[in-house]
Amino acid sequence: MTFKRKKISVIGSGFTGATAAFMLAQKELGDVVLVDIPEMENPAKGKALDMAEAGPIQGYDAKIIGTANYEDTKDSDLVIITAGIARKPGMSRDDLVQTNQKIMKAVTNEIVKNSPDTTIIVLTNPVDAMTYTVYKESGFPKERVIGQSGVLDSARFRTFVAEELNLSVKDITGFVLGGHGDDMVPLVRYSYAGGIPLATLIPKERLEEIVARTRKGGAEIVNLLGTGSAYYAPAASLVEMAEAIIKDQRRLLPAIAFLEGEYGLDGIYLGVPTILGAGGIEKIIEIELNEEETAALKQSAESVKAVMEVLA
Amino acid sequence: MTFKRKKISVIGSGFTGATAAFMLAQKELGDVVLVDIPEMENPAKGKALDMAEAGPIQGYDAKIIGTANYEDTKDSDLVIITAGIARKPGMSRDDLVQTNQKIMKAVTNEIVKNSPDTTIIVLTNPVDAMTYTVYKESGFPKERVIGQSGVLDSARFRTFVAEELNLSVKDITGFVLGGHGDDMVPLVRYSYAGGIPLATLIPKERLEEIVARTRKGGAEIVNLLGTGSAYYAPAASLVEMAEAIIKDQRRLLPAIAFLEGEYGLDGIYLGVPTILGAGGIEKIIEIELNEEETAALKQSAESVKAVMEVLA
Amino acid sequence: MTFKRKKISVIGSGFTGATAAFMLAQKELGDVVLVDIPEMENPAKGKALDMAEAGPIQGYDAKIIGTANYEDTKDSDLVIITAGIARKPGMSRDDLVQTNQKIMKAVTNEIVKNSPDTTIIVLTNPVDAMTYTVYKESGFPKERVIGQSGVLDSARFRTFVAEELNLSVKDITGFVLGGHGDDMVPLVRYSYAGGIPLATLIPKERLEEIVARTRKGGAEIVNLLGTGSAYYAPAASLVEMAEAIIKDQRRLLPAIAFLEGEYGLDGIYLGVPTILGAGGIEKIIEIELNEEETAALKQSAESVKAVMEVLA
Amino acid sequence: MTFKRKKISVIGSGFTGATAAFMLAQKELGDVVLVDIPEMENPAKGKALDMAEAGPIQGYDAKIIGTANYEDTKDSDLVIITAGIARKPGMSRDDLVQTNQKIMKAVTNEIVKNSPDTTIIVLTNPVDAMTYTVYKESGFPKERVIGQSGVLDSARFRTFVAEELNLSVKDITGFVLGGHGDDMVPLVRYSYAGGIPLATLIPKERLEEIVARTRKGGAEIVNLLGTGSAYYAPAASLVEMAEAIIKDQRRLLPAIAFLEGEYGLDGIYLGVPTILGAGGIEKIIEIELNEEETAALKQSAESVKAVMEVLA
Repeated sequence: MTFKRKKISVIGSGFTGATAAFMLAQKELGDVVLVDIPEMENPAKGKALDMAEAGPIQGYDAKIIGTANYEDTKDSDLVIITAGIARKPGMSRDDLVQTNQKIMKAVTNEIVKNSPDTTIIVLTNPVDAMTYTVYKESGFPKERVIGQSGVLDSARFRTFVAEELNLSVKDITGFVLGGHGDDMVPLVRYSYAGGIPLATLIPKERLEEIVARTRKGGAEIVNLLGTGSAYYAPAASLVEMAEAIIKDQRRLLPAIAFLEGEYGLDGIYLGVPTILGAGGIEKIIEIELNEEETAALKQSAESVKAVMEVLA
Repeated sequence: MTFKRKKISVIGSGFTGATAAFMLAQKELGDVVLVDIPEMENPAKGKALDMAEAGPIQGYDAKIIGTANYEDTKDSDLVIITAGIARKPGMSRDDLVQTNQKIMKAVTNEIVKNSPDTTIIVLTNPVDAMTYTVYKESGFPKERVIGQSGVLDSARFRTFVAEELNLSVKDITGFVLGGHGDDMVPLVRYSYAGGIPLATLIPKERLEEIVARTRKGGAEIVNLLGTGSAYYAPAASLVEMAEAIIKDQRRLLPAIAFLEGEYGLDGIYLGVPTILGAGGIEKIIEIELNEEETAALKQSAESVKAVMEVLA
Repeated sequence: MTFKRKKISVIGSGFTGATAAFMLAQKELGDVVLVDIPEMENPAKGKALDMAEAGPIQGYDAKIIGTANYEDTKDSDLVIITAGIARKPGMSRDDLVQTNQKIMKAVTNEIVKNSPDTTIIVLTNPVDAMTYTVYKESGFPKERVIGQSGVLDSARFRTFVAEELNLSVKDITGFVLGGHGDDMVPLVRYSYAGGIPLATLIPKERLEEIVARTRKGGAEIVNLLGTGSAYYAPAASLVEMAEAIIKDQRRLLPAIAFLEGEYGLDGIYLGVPTILGAGGIEKIIEIELNEEETAALKQSAESVKAVMEVLA
Repeated sequence: MTFKRKKISVIGSGFTGATAAFMLAQKELGDVVLVDIPEMENPAKGKALDMAEAGPIQGYDAKIIGTANYEDTKDSDLVIITAGIARKPGMSRDDLVQTNQKIMKAVTNEIVKNSPDTTIIVLTNPVDAMTYTVYKESGFPKERVIGQSGVLDSARFRTFVAEELNLSVKDITGFVLGGHGDDMVPLVRYSYAGGIPLATLIPKERLEEIVARTRKGGAEIVNLLGTGSAYYAPAASLVEMAEAIIKDQRRLLPAIAFLEGEYGLDGIYLGVPTILGAGGIEKIIEIELNEEETAALKQSAESVKAVMEVLA
């Protein structure tokens, strides 16, 4: 019988990583190790100390440390990867993919060495391909390597719908499949306000505008910020998934899972409805798709495959 | 500019009323006045004091008092009525209706005298008729007299579905219309797990069993308890509605609302989807029903009317 | 690496036990088993089901069951004992002690059989002697058998002080030693409002009245309720201790601990400041007492010993 | 009877302002307006949108907008000022003071024009002088212009003590007087672990090191971050004060208050124990100081006066 605190490592102490670390502490899901490269170790330590100092005020107990030493992550119960570079002006997509692939490999090796039994959630873009990279490099069973995209995409969709209908976000549910961003397949048919299908509450054209805005949700914020990208909602998405796993909640959430035949796809990571619990992805749920949705999902899979071909 | 605490009065200090008072305090929704008849004033005071003493531990600030003096409820922002008797063995339904009607009238007069601008949520059974009684007696606009049943009924339904599917309750949504309990019209068509229609996840016969169990949900607990009836989930339901109103959340929740033409019904209180916000019931949502559902709703309305005919 | 939910058993499904079970679920500290004798199994099941049905509304995931079968408690991470009878008019103290001792022994044997590595928190009165009984009967190391009294007593004290000063309960700290209730040794010297010693904020006579009211805090509620005794604040106290242990918070809280030389006392369970964490009582803190306080603590220990002499 | 959401404006959309806005939303304390200068309007909008999109995941309802137009702050219930520049290498203290003074004046005029009855909390450094500037410029009664420093300073102290003793931060209380940072007067005498004076738990030299570290707490994080300064704990401090006021909690918290004779000081803003409630600073608490503490407070006041002399 032991009550050892859970230990969660967040790789990458940028805004998303740091915000995720903070939200993990707020929820007292465990002690948090915020990891970055040696050049960023001090900023990681600074952020960790700052959020530790918010603990007495917000009422949470959690050890939070910043480090560049992966030995500090030893025996992590869960690891969240936010490390990686963002696409810069003039950078080709292939350069981005290959640079982040290298980062994923290096990070994964360190994780596996220190926490061979952990579960990994990946946020780094292009997330489908990066999750695949971590899966391959780790040698972990597929259910313990999970990518994030659908929780965020559907949160954006829900926000826009709640605003459109002037309703509580608590009562809006959304449903997305496929890749992140442009390749997202939003299933409006499976999205509701208080259980009422959105199509009966919002005119078709307006719904299409909301879907289009959702697809471009990341870019909308990048454009507004001028420099950097979104981090509050991405961090919240990661923490929602982490909580589902750590508390064994068996949430039915969209996640990037390794498909082996599901939805007629094989050998790729793609966003699908899953059950997240103590075992990671405990199940992939297959739902019935109409012709249009099937085509969109196939198209999304093609995009992911195109990126995967760039992988070294 | 004022930050005066909200004041919420709970009429009836039985288990449901007391538990609702406690949950209101936990959420720091305002100060709480727990009201009962003079014979029960001391127990009301005792419960209020006991829950005040839990405040330093659970970390909430709320003045909680027990009283038999309605002047203590003066200028309540919200009033919740849980007072009334339960049906006892050998008691005819008409006796129950008339006894509780008398109680509603007495309570309502006191409320109106002390808080002429308040909003009232009614729990007392038979709740559709009792809400109507409070509406008539108060002379309040219809949007400020609201009955509770659907939040509780759908919570029970969601609990049974979550158990059936071994999933988090957070991802199950349910939808009910019509009267409370036996007269409930559960709309399985509008109920989901993570946005996926339940009919595709649970066999038809099993779903029917779950619906049947939901209809008898109150009786199931009465039978187990031996004496008394459910109070945790009913209290939580009341507090969910109260929070939606006090925080102006514009939740899309089922509530017992006064119908004037909606769903083809007129002059009765019945459970329908509503938007609950600062103004009480800010809107009644009309959803498309199929033939079977329309018939069930009509049947439910007939049951309510039959009870209303017993009203003095 | 496992994320198995914690399992907490609550023995006794009366008001305090049931309320504790509910609060454990609200905090998602684990799955909850509410145990009672066969005659009360159905009410325990009814309460468990009712609070499970509040889960979808309050947003918590926890399996909650009622049972009379101790096998359902198998491998509990923590056990809370609230079982026992209350002193009835005409019952001698010795009768009370011996009846509850028998109950403790029976309950403890079942606990040990099913969860040999668990930690036990005892609430049953007279709590010092009953905790001792459980300790002896269980054969557990002393740090894993803990009694509750100081969290509750100081919560009452803090409530009265907050009311007196019209301040938030969040900023009042209180400190008690010794036995529960009449034998309580409130250390006003160690009690503060926002860190300011109470003696500088409240006149001596008034403080003494508050101390006297705290000593009689349980009786005040018994008298108001007419039948039964307090349960909100006692349940909150148990859950505060449970949370400290389960989340390994290393809270510095008063608890009934087995003394072996501390405070000059030996071989008895008595309320002292402790550190509660994953290991149960991880440390007993000895603070400096003045002459008056030492005398009061000694007196309190004598009372506990007198009760212990009644033990069979 | 109205349940209009509270409206809280945060001036300055940098890290502290944005993080405060996020925490206000998490606590559902009201709708949030994040204000910055026209050049930073888009980033403010981007951050506001990003945190709105976290709402469906974290379960809060709050309208959050970014703007450069003060008309959007109209009728704010509370305003938090985080705007201002940080001291840059080579910048004299006087330059910093005068630049931020100009910003305070401009900001205050806009606040007063749009929300003449609001309450203002100031974070901008040097905070004592800047709070004074806002007070003078606003013409508001002193109780409605409040500076933040003590909540943050004592949170840092509590964090270090909790780490030193390996105890929950929940049980450590700290007490500071005087100016922010170097001029802080930490009253170790009034600081406790579970009510036990720290001086009995931590050796004198070690406590002095902790006090010294607390004084330099802001610089420690600045040095680690390399660029920028702390924002998690500062934001949490602002939100703690905001919550105390909005919920009328009457918290006993350290705050920068305008002194008119208290502690023998007159006409300056300085950190003292206050009661924060609906009325802003409802009371200043005078505690007994020993000779050493009195001297330190006087020294702190001199430092503040020296800065005030720089004010235009």
